[in-house]
Amino acid sequence: NYNYSSYDTEKTNTSKRICPQSKNLPNEGKRNSKISISLEEAIIQTGLKDGMTISFHHHFRHGDQTVEQILKIIDKLKIKNLTVSASSFTNAHDCLIDYINKGVITGLEGSGLRGKLGDAISEGILTKPVILRSHGGRARAIESGETYINVAFLAVASSDEMGNANGYIGLSCVGSLGYALVDAQYAEKVVLITDNIVLYPNSPISIPQIKVDYVVKVDKIGDALKIASGEIRPFFQYKEIKIAQNIIKIIKNTPYFKNGFSFQTGTGGASQASLLMLKEQMLKQNIKASFFLGGIIGAQTELLKEGLVQKLLDVQSFDLAAIESIKQNINHLEISASFYANAHTKDCATNKLDYGVLSALEVDINFNSNVLTGANGYIRGAIGGHPDVAYGSEVT
Amino acid sequence: NYNYSSYDTEKTNTSKRICPQSKNLPNEGKRNSKISISLEEAIIQTGLKDGMTISFHHHFRHGDQTVEQILKIIDKLKIKNLTVSASSFTNAHDCLIDYINKGVITGLEGSGLRGKLGDAISEGILTKPVILRSHGGRARAIESGETYINVAFLAVASSDEMGNANGYIGLSCVGSLGYALVDAQYAEKVVLITDNIVLYPNSPISIPQIKVDYVVKVDKIGDALKIASGEIRPFFQYKEIKIAQNIIKIIKNTPYFKNGFSFQTGTGGASQASLLMLKEQMLKQNIKASFFLGGIIGAQTELLKEGLVQKLLDVQSFDLAAIESIKQNINHLEISASFYANAHTKDCATNKLDYGVLSALEVDINFNSNVLTGANGYIRGAIGGHPDVAYGSEVT
Repeated sequence: NYNYSSYDTEKTNTSKRICPQSKNLPNEGKRNSKISISLEEAIIQTGLKDGMTISFHHHFRHGDQTVEQILKIIDKLKIKNLTVSASSFTNAHDCLIDYINKGVITGLEGSGLRGKLGDAISEGILTKPVILRSHGGRARAIESGETYINVAFLAVASSDEMGNANGYIGLSCVGSLGYALVDAQYAEKVVLITDNIVLYPNSPISIPQIKVDYVVKVDKIGDALKIASGEIRPFFQYKEIKIAQNIIKIIKNTPYFKNGFSFQTGTGGASQASLLMLKEQMLKQNIKASFFLGGIIGAQTELLKEGLVQKLLDVQSFDLAAIESIKQNINHLEISASFYANAHTKDCATNKLDYGVLSALEVDINFNSNVLTGANGYIRGAIGGHPDVAYGSEVT
Repeated sequence: NYNYSSYDTEKTNTSKRICPQSKNLPNEGKRNSKISISLEEAIIQTGLKDGMTISFHHHFRHGDQTVEQILKIIDKLKIKNLTVSASSFTNAHDCLIDYINKGVITGLEGSGLRGKLGDAISEGILTKPVILRSHGGRARAIESGETYINVAFLAVASSDEMGNANGYIGLSCVGSLGYALVDAQYAEKVVLITDNIVLYPNSPISIPQIKVDYVVKVDKIGDALKIASGEIRPFFQYKEIKIAQNIIKIIKNTPYFKNGFSFQTGTGGASQASLLMLKEQMLKQNIKASFFLGGIIGAQTELLKEGLVQKLLDVQSFDLAAIESIKQNINHLEISASFYANAHTKDCATNKLDYGVLSALEVDINFNSNVLTGANGYIRGAIGGHPDVAYGSEVT
């Protein structure tokens, strides 16, 4: 029996947030470079030990090639019983199954599970219950100390020798590093992994050097084709069109649809179709939006360029057009998971939303939604930002 | 006798950094605007009480008109025995003398003292010793919890209704808000004071909404003429030219003067003259710099424009040309006091400096320097970033 103490509101209310990074800092002295000769060297230097918690982000999505490299070395070093806290699990995390079976990993925290890992977990390969939180909930857990990350392994598109890093520059661009910013801020040790070391000082500074312990250069951090797709959908399924039409019907008949409204949607065909229809309505009624929030897609950057929306607040850039936009457009802003959706801050961005469009696997007639588990009992989805957006927005 | 426990390295080494902002957050609920109807209302809402610590920044320099407005109301509310932690004290803080005499303020922490306030303190109007730290030292003290700020009052050039703020937009521009960023990050309550409320979401986001409790609009936050001067010096004193010549003589004869070197200097005539001469040497030897650090002046932005330096890392924009540059040039970066000079981070920017040029009131033949106290025993200067730069740079 695993003794899981659930989220204790009272305790969190009165506790202080902890930023544990300074513990041994003065002993490090002054360094002129943080580049480790190898990933193995960096892992040894962090002091990673049995039973600790490590973290990853999922900005490189299915194209991530760092998670497996890191776990292979941890296994080689015979470190066991680790908890992995990830902003989400993608196909790139299927390799975790092997390391769970070997006892290297015995705990998982994330926002969802799918694919082979989801199946394996659903079938019970992990003895401890997986802890799944929303994107904002994960930021809250890390900031409050509920999730204490000993070592964060953060893949970045570029870094200088001191650890100033971003997702903008290099062969493996991802745009916003929003989810990783919280790990960088609060983890005890931070290791950056990149295939692109640039001249000091690197900018924009998404992750600042003052939060970084080690920088490791590897041959390849990802498969660019799987990191972001340039897919622009000219055709939609009939179902997607119908859903989009219903979304727009609701929006245009609610009082929040006026100048300065705000909107969040997802990545699927229905979302893309609804954006096209929303644009049509906005032009027709001469209405402009103040901001679009969350994971950003190319269709939203078009509206930014055309002046139909004032700002994009981007926690994750979903496609190549979004990545290009965040590089070039000063009104396309990178935000952290905490800024995005952490309800335990002094008001996060989701709390300013008018419209949140969310997908669900099952919805009952009282609007209770399941976004996680298939009808067959297998975990096949992600909580994502759903509860945060549903709480924050005027119309969900 | 005031029992002053001096900076305890051992204790700081092993303690955890504390970010105390979440204490009562969930009770606040979801807010659609943080604008208080008045400064008085905001101060009451913060729960400010006798014996607490409040903070100010000095980015508005001699032109700041918020400090006096705030202290007047605090006095009216009969709150006593406060400690003021400020990033520095300027002429705008001369008004503190009255409130010290009234017992409203009984403790001061800053980086220096000068003018009337310096004289009054030197003559003993404050019973507790003033605590003066370097700019990096103040950031360290705040992050470690050694200085616990109950309420930070931060003047900003612009803010939206949720507290996304910067020093870039409005009538009272100051450019970088570097020193204030640490207060915003760690103070228990944060009150922004501005004369310029802009549409949500404001950007660039120097201070993010998730760190802000209240936003107050006042008629005027400052006297633009005293905030930043547009002064470009065509003439220099003979003494300044001689000092500048000596600076350049040293620089060009040290091995660090090569492509990619870095440099920090101050605001005086000698600094401006030395920059002109440095530029001459750089052109002559075809040498380009990687970054200039610290308080940034117009002459440095010229070198940025001309491609002679790659980046400016700006904790405080000293003149109008610097303010214009940070607004427009993506290679002119706003950095926090912690990024700038906090030695208890995982390496701050001063640690990457090749050359640090610092002024001093007195230097002995063993290079021990006094930057604080005049020969008459009166405090008339500021520690500023001096110890941080001296420790970090290869040549001081």
